[in-house]
Amino acid sequence: MDEYGPILLMLVTLIVLARLASGVFSRFGVPGLIGEIVIGIVIANLAIGDWSFLGMLGVEMGGAPSQGYEIVKLFAELGVIFLLFAVGLETKVKDLLSVGKAALLVATLGVLVPLMAGIALILAYDGNMNHALFLGAALVATSVGITARVIKDMKLIDTKEAKIIIGAAVIDDVLGMMVLAIVVGMTASGGVSVSHIAMISAEALVFVVAVLAAALWVVPRLYRYFEERDKNRIAGGGRPHPGVNKLVLAIAVCLGFSFFADMIGLAAIIGAFLGGMLLAEYAWEWKLDEKIESITTLFISFFFLNVGMQVDLGSLTSASALILAAVVILLAVATKYVGCNMGARLGDRSLSKGSRNIIGFGMVPRGEVGIIIAAIGLASGVMTSELYGVVILMAVVTTIIAPPLLARAFRKEYPPEYSLTQDDLI
Amino acid sequence: MDEYGPILLMLVTLIVLARLASGVFSRFGVPGLIGEIVIGIVIANLAIGDWSFLGMLGVEMGGAPSQGYEIVKLFAELGVIFLLFAVGLETKVKDLLSVGKAALLVATLGVLVPLMAGIALILAYDGNMNHALFLGAALVATSVGITARVIKDMKLIDTKEAKIIIGAAVIDDVLGMMVLAIVVGMTASGGVSVSHIAMISAEALVFVVAVLAAALWVVPRLYRYFEERDKNRIAGGGRPHPGVNKLVLAIAVCLGFSFFADMIGLAAIIGAFLGGMLLAEYAWEWKLDEKIESITTLFISFFFLNVGMQVDLGSLTSASALILAAVVILLAVATKYVGCNMGARLGDRSLSKGSRNIIGFGMVPRGEVGIIIAAIGLASGVMTSELYGVVILMAVVTTIIAPPLLARAFRKEYPPEYSLTQDDLI
Repeated sequence: MDEYGPILLMLVTLIVLARLASGVFSRFGVPGLIGEIVIGIVIANLAIGDWSFLGMLGVEMGGAPSQGYEIVKLFAELGVIFLLFAVGLETKVKDLLSVGKAALLVATLGVLVPLMAGIALILAYDGNMNHALFLGAALVATSVGITARVIKDMKLIDTKEAKIIIGAAVIDDVLGMMVLAIVVGMTASGGVSVSHIAMISAEALVFVVAVLAAALWVVPRLYRYFEERDKNRIAGGGRPHPGVNKLVLAIAVCLGFSFFADMIGLAAIIGAFLGGMLLAEYAWEWKLDEKIESITTLFISFFFLNVGMQVDLGSLTSASALILAAVVILLAVATKYVGCNMGARLGDRSLSKGSRNIIGFGMVPRGEVGIIIAAIGLASGVMTSELYGVVILMAVVTTIIAPPLLARAFRKEYPPEYSLTQDDLI
Repeated sequence: MDEYGPILLMLVTLIVLARLASGVFSRFGVPGLIGEIVIGIVIANLAIGDWSFLGMLGVEMGGAPSQGYEIVKLFAELGVIFLLFAVGLETKVKDLLSVGKAALLVATLGVLVPLMAGIALILAYDGNMNHALFLGAALVATSVGITARVIKDMKLIDTKEAKIIIGAAVIDDVLGMMVLAIVVGMTASGGVSVSHIAMISAEALVFVVAVLAAALWVVPRLYRYFEERDKNRIAGGGRPHPGVNKLVLAIAVCLGFSFFADMIGLAAIIGAFLGGMLLAEYAWEWKLDEKIESITTLFISFFFLNVGMQVDLGSLTSASALILAAVVILLAVATKYVGCNMGARLGDRSLSKGSRNIIGFGMVPRGEVGIIIAAIGLASGVMTSELYGVVILMAVVTTIIAPPLLARAFRKEYPPEYSLTQDDLI
């Protein structure tokens, strides 16, 4: 009677497969989200002759945009938005500012080292400056979604290392946006509009600073004002104001800030994180963490599935592409790790080698941000499809290898009682 | 950087507008969902010259399917699916079976009286038997989503009247499906395939009975088996099995049962309700009610918005269509109320007049089910577009007028301490 049968089948099949894979992987001590990415690769590439598994589910990825895949991508986006919102809810501004210097240096060196190395590599490979600039920009991006899930699953958001990583990811995104603007300017017109870049950078900085200030001074005052008003009403014999549903308020802040960040050129997830931080002081009182977690649970598997689904195994057949991909992946891991490690050392002398290890690995995943940059390059005709395939693979592989390295580094610093509880992972 | 900016803007705008309208209406003592429907009507019809509010949000409803409206409809569907799943979670099979006879009679008379009256009316109006059959079928449907929200908001799921309404809605859907099959058979081939109707009716009955049986006998045994196994492991010095995330299990059951119900021709929401009932015994222990409520909160406003958005005020200009619509609406309310009231009287002599009032009004909303039937008729060329518009209006108006009548009837039987808490409504 209804047009939603096929969509419901697709949703339930993908959720069940993702969670089963997550359960199997975490049984073997590997973070469950890797299982979700791997199942994404498998189902996107599982085809026998004319038959394909995704086609059976109504998810056609190539060619015309299909409704099924549009829904998967939307749910993936909402999943990572609500995940970062939840991380924001557990991050108080004061704590974040206390690691400000370290986060700033981690982000800056974590941007400069991969950018330079990426440009140098591609200049040596094919001598094309435009290719070099885009690959460099794609290496800059850090996708904090994966790291955030590992940190949340291990219940380690309160650690100093987690706060540095998250703070650095916000700054990294602002820097990455500036790099992308510069690269687009240089490749499109052959020149850079300094005023344009100054504009968008200023917008992003004002947004971030305004949210921090609002979280520190405006939101607590609003909260006290409404509390006082209700107290006075009750004292006057009246009923307290019914008020708004706190979950609806949180959803509106989460989606609204995500939209706004996207509009001014930041990643939507950075807006979601900042929106969460705005409400962090009241998250516990309003039970927002539990409630947002329920919503995240519905969506988040689609994010990791979709990371895997980006991998087109069929496109990776030429030997030179495979070798280039291997080199780019090594470079992506090494330069981010080294840059962030150095930044952490300069920024906070008290950090142990183990802590710098955590921070280095935590910044490695490129995830969807690297893919978006490569897609911009491909769409504007600057990237070759071979380089695009290499960037996709780099983004997916860094996303897959970072969580086990990060989890192990965390376990070394925060042993037994902090260890991964399997129950949280499936 | 991202393609989701416009979608995020659309989602947050619609959620905020819906909740504001809900808050304003409930301040004046009208159930908040009416505000959400009204705001749906307003924004779908708000256009000045070339400018339209929905167009600004990227929601184009007519002509080519737009991505924006597809997402609104999908969220609407998921909202009502999770709402009915939540109602199922609060409905134990034993309680439902205890009102079985009354529910059966309420459903049967609530189907027969509107069907006969609808056929008679249209035969008198234009003498076309095909038109008459489809309008009759559209009058049969009961959409329990609206009633369910009123009952949930008033925290009255535990009342006998609520159980009769919900049980009757399940039976009504099975009967309605049989009526639709008969009507489609009669209008398409001029004859009815008895074996075809017997087949789909048998499928639906087997499904419903199988779920009831599974809830009574299979699920408790599975639960005890896993509990025993964990006990034995702990007694043997091992760790309990990590188990699955209960919310993921619930989501899978909810979407899976919705799909299955849809596949065999029932409404997806009936499957969601039955799936919820399967887990009702463990909903409290697993905190499923709170968790599903968070998910429902994200989606449900889209359901009521979309009910309103179906109304095209521009199509209702001819006087004869308006008069016909008024007559059909009166008939829809009166016949459902009278049929269900009679059924309740015959089915359970102990029901007071007030209780029968509640049951009669609770079955009145036609909601999306009536619209789906009309759409089938329109697509198969049997309905005229005028009659289609009349059915849409009937579905929306019955959905709008039932909640206040139902809330008032409930308040008469269950006064003060049960009264609507505004906090739940916005």
